[in-house]
Amino acid sequence: MQRGAVEGSKGVIFETIPENLDMNLPKTFRIADFGCSTGPNTFFAMKNIMEAVMLKHQSTQEANLRKTTPEFHVFFNDHVDNDFNTLFKTLPPNRPYFAAGVPGSFHCQLLPEASLHIAHSSYALHWLSKVPPQVMDKGSPAWNKGKIYCAGNEKEVTKAYFAQFKADTDAFLKARAQELVEGGLVVVQIPGVPNSKVLPSQIGGGLNCEFLGDSLADMVKMGNITEEKVDSFNLPMYLPSIEEVKMVVEMNKCFTIEKICSLSHPSIYDSSPLDIERTCADVRAINENLMQDHFGSENMDQLFHLFGQNLQKNRLLYDKAVRQDVYHFALLKRKGNI
Amino acid sequence: MQRGAVEGSKGVIFETIPENLDMNLPKTFRIADFGCSTGPNTFFAMKNIMEAVMLKHQSTQEANLRKTTPEFHVFFNDHVDNDFNTLFKTLPPNRPYFAAGVPGSFHCQLLPEASLHIAHSSYALHWLSKVPPQVMDKGSPAWNKGKIYCAGNEKEVTKAYFAQFKADTDAFLKARAQELVEGGLVVVQIPGVPNSKVLPSQIGGGLNCEFLGDSLADMVKMGNITEEKVDSFNLPMYLPSIEEVKMVVEMNKCFTIEKICSLSHPSIYDSSPLDIERTCADVRAINENLMQDHFGSENMDQLFHLFGQNLQKNRLLYDKAVRQDVYHFALLKRKGNI
Repeated sequence: MQRGAVEGSKGVIFETIPENLDMNLPKTFRIADFGCSTGPNTFFAMKNIMEAVMLKHQSTQEANLRKTTPEFHVFFNDHVDNDFNTLFKTLPPNRPYFAAGVPGSFHCQLLPEASLHIAHSSYALHWLSKVPPQVMDKGSPAWNKGKIYCAGNEKEVTKAYFAQFKADTDAFLKARAQELVEGGLVVVQIPGVPNSKVLPSQIGGGLNCEFLGDSLADMVKMGNITEEKVDSFNLPMYLPSIEEVKMVVEMNKCFTIEKICSLSHPSIYDSSPLDIERTCADVRAINENLMQDHFGSENMDQLFHLFGQNLQKNRLLYDKAVRQDVYHFALLKRKGNI
Repeated sequence: MQRGAVEGSKGVIFETIPENLDMNLPKTFRIADFGCSTGPNTFFAMKNIMEAVMLKHQSTQEANLRKTTPEFHVFFNDHVDNDFNTLFKTLPPNRPYFAAGVPGSFHCQLLPEASLHIAHSSYALHWLSKVPPQVMDKGSPAWNKGKIYCAGNEKEVTKAYFAQFKADTDAFLKARAQELVEGGLVVVQIPGVPNSKVLPSQIGGGLNCEFLGDSLADMVKMGNITEEKVDSFNLPMYLPSIEEVKMVVEMNKCFTIEKICSLSHPSIYDSSPLDIERTCADVRAINENLMQDHFGSENMDQLFHLFGQNLQKNRLLYDKAVRQDVYHFALLKRKGNI
């Protein structure tokens, strides 16, 4: 999914970065990828951004006054449990940039003040710093009974999840505003719903969570885990609409929105039939760590086996839902006086 | 050993850094530790350097014109096989700096041009990028017959090893000269011999290698490894004299030597008897990776068991030799025109 977004947004990156990068290019141009995981997607994303910066550099280069080409310093960030050893071992050889790894939560400042030129984040901001506590509180009107994610059909649940998304994204933007130079850019890709009338449960990204929840319910019926165990679990994830993303950026006040749009994942134009096995592997890769912390690693094989069965049973529904998957692309520029 | 050098050189660092840091302190002050390993020694070393920079900052701060305190950005470098995951997980909480990991060989440029203010390296430069090929070539006058390290009693062997040390240290200094700003500092601690009349085999650091070689010879006699296997192994390590360190820096031409001295390891003032078990563990931690690549991990338990026996047999000799161990401290300043 993330690789598709990296490739799919190459066009809009090549168009919007040169257009909006109105600073004089510095000798050292610093780029950071927040929530980079272990690669290789992050390497492709960074390559696209550097190429877009070089387009700008070449277009402003006077024929008789050769400006020196900027050197790129690329910072790869993810939380401290990320496998940086693998990331480092798979860095492209002969890369035209200096690489560094930065461990820590991207909801905090991670780089010195006004030292960064472009901040990038792909398929990371929909992960929340925590599950909003109300949704697991049986006494709260926001109790998310029988669900493990924000399906969108319970107003109070959605309100609690959106509040967390808003707080987290605001913290992310505040931290980036500290790190970026004036005129520096934020490029984000966030998976979400195509418009506010479509519920998360009607898109592929939401259905994956729905089927994971169904599989957990199956395991309760089979007596392998307790209902209580399932009730005390929710995924810290929110699939926003583009209006919600826009609202959060505007409330934050540190950035102007230079471009915002929803893009379809390139794979949806692919008419080949649903590959159940591959989808299972993808969903497992994304969710396993989180879920085994709560349900135990001994239950993971069964959980994802049942997930595959639920996917198979609902493949027509899923095929249709996947076609509604979008990601929101936003290019933001750091204001001068904040 | 390295921790001792970090603590032992605190005084000279506090004295020489404020004295030689004659630049205007920048808003972002960048420090890098080359060959940092997995911590915690590197954290103590970086703390000492930051405190020394702050001494300079406080001494030049006018009472009525408060200068902003610099923000520190610390880069932790080691080769790509280093365990950065452990390094990152053990970073001090509430550290007063931004941290980044930089994978790669410190014989190459790893950071952008003129972006660094202080480069540090402790107990790393005595490791060579490779064993000089002549010392393992039976047809060469530099063949290191029956030894696995540069013991110092064979002129041609020493010449070959020193040539490699010179080439590697020159590459290190050239790379740092690229990275450092004009007036930027290099702080190094290199274990070595106290003067050119003392052979490496007469100090603790050399005797460790001597006893490892003896233990391998024992294993040949026992029929567990072949003589050929031992003949094709040498440690990529050189313990220089202070004159040799000085010569390499002067030949490199990018730096002025602001301070150079040999310091004794603080533990030699410690009159407690030799702790065989601890010495074995230290020597194993340092050499095991290198040796198991060549001799196989199945032979490591026996090798270090025999090493302990050889140490025990020669404890009087070893006790005396350890008192000759020194490390060379050098503070270098990057010249303006290079």
